[in-house]
Amino acid sequence: MQKPPSESASVLPGPLLAPRSVAIVGQSDDPGKTAGRPLKLLRQAGFAGHVYPVNARRQTVLGERAWPSLAALPEPPEHVYVVTPADAAVEAVEEAGALGVKVATVLADGFAEAGEAGAARVARLRAIAEATGIRIVGPSSLGVVNLRDKMLLTANAAFDEPELPAGHMFAASHSGSMIGALLSRGKARFLGFAGLISVGNEIDLSLGEICAATLDDAAIHGYLLFLESLRHAQALRAFALAAAERGKPVVAYKLGRSAPARELALSHTGALAGEDDIAGAFLADCGIARVDTLEGLVEVLPLLARVPPAKDNRRRSVGVITTTAGGATMVVDPLAMRGVEIRPPSAETLTNLAAAGVEVKPARLIDLTMAGTRYEAMKSALDIASAAPELDLVLAVVGSSARFHPELAVKPIIDSAGSAKPIAAYLVPDAPQALAALGAAGVPNFRTPEACADAVAAALKRRVPRALPGRAQRAGDRIRALDALAAGKLIERLGIAVAPAVAIDADIASAPALPFPYPVAVKALAAEIAHKTDLGGVALGVPDGEALLAAIGTIRRNLARHRPPASIERVLVQPMVPGLGEVLIGYRLDRDAGPLVMVAAGGVLTEIYRDRSLRLAPVDLAVAHEMIAEVRALLPLAGYRGQPHGDLGALAQGIVALSTLAQADESVIEAEINPLIVRADGQGVVAVDALVTLAA
Amino acid sequence: MQKPPSESASVLPGPLLAPRSVAIVGQSDDPGKTAGRPLKLLRQAGFAGHVYPVNARRQTVLGERAWPSLAALPEPPEHVYVVTPADAAVEAVEEAGALGVKVATVLADGFAEAGEAGAARVARLRAIAEATGIRIVGPSSLGVVNLRDKMLLTANAAFDEPELPAGHMFAASHSGSMIGALLSRGKARFLGFAGLISVGNEIDLSLGEICAATLDDAAIHGYLLFLESLRHAQALRAFALAAAERGKPVVAYKLGRSAPARELALSHTGALAGEDDIAGAFLADCGIARVDTLEGLVEVLPLLARVPPAKDNRRRSVGVITTTAGGATMVVDPLAMRGVEIRPPSAETLTNLAAAGVEVKPARLIDLTMAGTRYEAMKSALDIASAAPELDLVLAVVGSSARFHPELAVKPIIDSAGSAKPIAAYLVPDAPQALAALGAAGVPNFRTPEACADAVAAALKRRVPRALPGRAQRAGDRIRALDALAAGKLIERLGIAVAPAVAIDADIASAPALPFPYPVAVKALAAEIAHKTDLGGVALGVPDGEALLAAIGTIRRNLARHRPPASIERVLVQPMVPGLGEVLIGYRLDRDAGPLVMVAAGGVLTEIYRDRSLRLAPVDLAVAHEMIAEVRALLPLAGYRGQPHGDLGALAQGIVALSTLAQADESVIEAEINPLIVRADGQGVVAVDALVTLAA
Repeated sequence: MQKPPSESASVLPGPLLAPRSVAIVGQSDDPGKTAGRPLKLLRQAGFAGHVYPVNARRQTVLGERAWPSLAALPEPPEHVYVVTPADAAVEAVEEAGALGVKVATVLADGFAEAGEAGAARVARLRAIAEATGIRIVGPSSLGVVNLRDKMLLTANAAFDEPELPAGHMFAASHSGSMIGALLSRGKARFLGFAGLISVGNEIDLSLGEICAATLDDAAIHGYLLFLESLRHAQALRAFALAAAERGKPVVAYKLGRSAPARELALSHTGALAGEDDIAGAFLADCGIARVDTLEGLVEVLPLLARVPPAKDNRRRSVGVITTTAGGATMVVDPLAMRGVEIRPPSAETLTNLAAAGVEVKPARLIDLTMAGTRYEAMKSALDIASAAPELDLVLAVVGSSARFHPELAVKPIIDSAGSAKPIAAYLVPDAPQALAALGAAGVPNFRTPEACADAVAAALKRRVPRALPGRAQRAGDRIRALDALAAGKLIERLGIAVAPAVAIDADIASAPALPFPYPVAVKALAAEIAHKTDLGGVALGVPDGEALLAAIGTIRRNLARHRPPASIERVLVQPMVPGLGEVLIGYRLDRDAGPLVMVAAGGVLTEIYRDRSLRLAPVDLAVAHEMIAEVRALLPLAGYRGQPHGDLGALAQGIVALSTLAQADESVIEAEINPLIVRADGQGVVAVDALVTLAA
Repeated sequence: MQKPPSESASVLPGPLLAPRSVAIVGQSDDPGKTAGRPLKLLRQAGFAGHVYPVNARRQTVLGERAWPSLAALPEPPEHVYVVTPADAAVEAVEEAGALGVKVATVLADGFAEAGEAGAARVARLRAIAEATGIRIVGPSSLGVVNLRDKMLLTANAAFDEPELPAGHMFAASHSGSMIGALLSRGKARFLGFAGLISVGNEIDLSLGEICAATLDDAAIHGYLLFLESLRHAQALRAFALAAAERGKPVVAYKLGRSAPARELALSHTGALAGEDDIAGAFLADCGIARVDTLEGLVEVLPLLARVPPAKDNRRRSVGVITTTAGGATMVVDPLAMRGVEIRPPSAETLTNLAAAGVEVKPARLIDLTMAGTRYEAMKSALDIASAAPELDLVLAVVGSSARFHPELAVKPIIDSAGSAKPIAAYLVPDAPQALAALGAAGVPNFRTPEACADAVAAALKRRVPRALPGRAQRAGDRIRALDALAAGKLIERLGIAVAPAVAIDADIASAPALPFPYPVAVKALAAEIAHKTDLGGVALGVPDGEALLAAIGTIRRNLARHRPPASIERVLVQPMVPGLGEVLIGYRLDRDAGPLVMVAAGGVLTEIYRDRSLRLAPVDLAVAHEMIAEVRALLPLAGYRGQPHGDLGALAQGIVALSTLAQADESVIEAEINPLIVRADGQGVVAVDALVTLAA
């Protein structure tokens, strides 16, 4: 239902964010009520465009003339905010569409999250949009705000703000309340917004499409997204890639790491939230920095503006300069837990520090100590660390002096703001004046050690997004499974070694000749039986022909015992493949994120620990190696505690090969090799079993 | 070296925290210097006691008479703050001790963290304390502060504060900088302190001893600890138990979850930091709430004052009332990740809400929605939730209205402050006035969703501490290992079933008669060989007598091949013990925490995932079951995804039995059963191998 970007370009961003005229349908006369706020806020802020309150039951609202209907207005407004309940809202949008209104924003709930009646309303709104070309924000939208033009088309009480913090961030949120939280929390940090939008249920205009429409606005320097789930992912991706091309950073906070939070996304918006690590892989692939803390979300953009996204997968590192080791370690601890390397100064850096008269002990932190809380010491240390090739970012942590004596250790940070290397600051005490001065100088600064670590880790991990190869839409939704033999052939065509296998009639009376020696594995061969092992459909280490016949009999009996009973005509016989370990690699066409590739250790513990690494497919060898390193259960194959090394090079090649399925075969919805046997270094990997599901 | 509490009682807390006279040795004339601060701060605050600046090189400092030495003073001061460098500091403490000064606080570093020279200085200070009875705070102490008496004996710049926030919290910190951070961040939250102390290296007075000395001060309502590592744990424990008896809550933030942070504790204080989960188990056992965020540390005490520690291990649950589902989920997500149950309202609670005219959808949150942002709705919801038996704590999350319209949804929280059930508040926007009003009304309130979740989880998990049974000091430090046979006997005496075993001469020429059937396990029998499997000293599933002889030969050859070569005279032969799973249970006398009991799944993955559960020993059955539930790798034994149930009751009994080692045998330093075979439900557990280390 979404229109291609070229079409949206004609109505966005003008009528959406900078309309010359707006109407509020359902404007109340009571400024304390939700429906009373939009007019009050627009007037209070001094919006220069035409404003038409529409209220059929009153002559005036808040002292202004109230119009009986949209049709009665002297002109069709460009943007209508509909603040009536759901059914009336649908009618208002219909009227607006018929009048040629460009954008309607709908406040009411009672749509996507509201069962059958809600779904019918959604369908009607979409039909109106289709028929009339009107674009819809919401429903469940708390509004659209453009602070430069004082266009406060919102019912959010937090915009009842005496001095609105206009600036250069643009915020888009699934939660309407959060635009108020971001505005006020940004203001408290001297950070301002160009605009904020509550996108609601996104039944027409998605968050990605809206943000994309604002990309050419030179006053917008970066984007701040609050996501309840991953929805309309491809529009989000298109926006993120275009933002990256323009050098505009994007940061997202996403709910849903825990099951209760995912459950909420469902009850709140009717959208089923996918698995959080899939969303994480998706955001990372799009070059969107992801933060885990609210303060990190509000505070990180200035840092992202300084730390360009990485072009490769080299791990970037932080150098820490501090006057308080204890205070600095409060940041180091969560940074290290996020996998960021805190790099000790090199011998050369230590020499340079000593030459500049800055005495520090060789340790992970450049600890000036309280005794070194002097302008010259801090400035020299910052200059030397900024020039140190081993560091990608310098973090300055200042202790108690920051509160009343910023001239000692905060001023040098401000004076180093133009340094070639990004510098971030965390002040240990409550030090509002020093933070304001840092902010005014453009130095990224943080109020809590947790937000600081969150933001620094997000900035260092951010990468330049890739343009993924295109992929045609798959034919249909009907799906069918391949049997193990056919699945193996498909895997083999990708260039992944597959264990030899012969299919044998399950009715045979005497042991067959096999093209490989015993012992062998015997497996039920039937596309319908996905979990063969659970059903007793697998026998391993079968030593000879007699045992093979016995195993076939046992497998048939096991399958027959199940409800519903399964019967098989053939079994698959393979040689036992020895190796150092077993790995699961998978490919999946995710509903939201698109083609994904996954690595895990397989088995029940992997599932319990959620120990897997995911990327958008396809991936290259470097990324495949990175994925292997992320799966903790694979550490033993990398020689952990003296264990023999597995052929991780071949494993990486297997991951790359599987990840190309998106291009190699568009009909594949899911493919899983489990187990892939990893042999000793130099001896490759062998797929022993595979599941493949196709769109039919 | 530490004196027993009875002896400290005579000098603490008076001379430490409320001295009638103080001297500053090394007071500088420059108030901008560290050594210039104490006199300036004392005068600025208006301390009423005698203050004697000592500076042998000047007639005056900061316009006051400077005394040439402590001996020249008209009276021996009760408390001396020594702000000279290390060697001069030792001399000053010696002089002070000789004069009968009660307490000396030492600022200098160059002691415990400073190699041999530092160790010599520490030894001298301890000898002085021993000889003269003077008690020492530090070294590396930024000072001691008593805000009621304006006793600012500190060099921390953050105390250069126009209006000091006097109040009822007492803060003790390993990091000197942090007392400034706590003071200023507390002030920004309208939370005040009775006193703050930077305990430094704790070479004499430990943090626990200092805090214990203040327990009878009725003006102190709770304690806030900043820990770099777990040191002087038994003094900390004694304090925590005494605080619990008086109903005074204690909260700790502890650094060192990551390896770089533990490394820092070493370089900073010379103390080797133990494993973080041991510290966690220790703090929990002492009834100390542990938080992970700085804001949580500052903000949690009012909540702890409302949420009494639990008397049993029932999981306590939170009910969430909100006007913004998105904002509330920002708290729910981290709460759920911390294992806190967010309990949906019961059918009865929903009925009560409906009867009161509060319409909410049946869901996990009581979501009033923006439309329900009214005083009456929030007040009714709070009253009903506070009375709901299914909830232990009510969390109110208020959206944008909190900023400018606290009368709508914040006021009802304030009016419910006296509710029988604890209510905590998180405001989604920046809303300083509303937070101040909540604070003034005594409602625990939080500024970030992360600190809120951190604090609520810490409060709900806090338990009444136990008085552990006493344990004599062990005889010596020399240690020796038992061989597997002797270790098995010791385990059996605890009441844990051990697999039958016979010791066989490794030189035997023909297969022996065994008291159990084949297949068997064969293991090298020698106390010196701890990692038998790694050395090829174990053979499993040996099918018959011939294979047994061959296995013994192989084991001997394997051991002989190693460097240094090991030889054995006997092997241990056991039947193979089938079961559903293998578990590792361990006992250890930890240097800091004391006797510990541990459960893990054993094997390399357990180590990689750090998937283990720890408690101070001994434990009871309820706690043992809780431990089992905490080890994720044991989920399959609990029937995860249809797997057969293991005998977890017997496993719990085994854990309890092993945990009694602290009482049963004082000489045991470490005992590990690995593996303990868990059989099907009702069939018990069997120890197959054990390691025991004794103090000789």
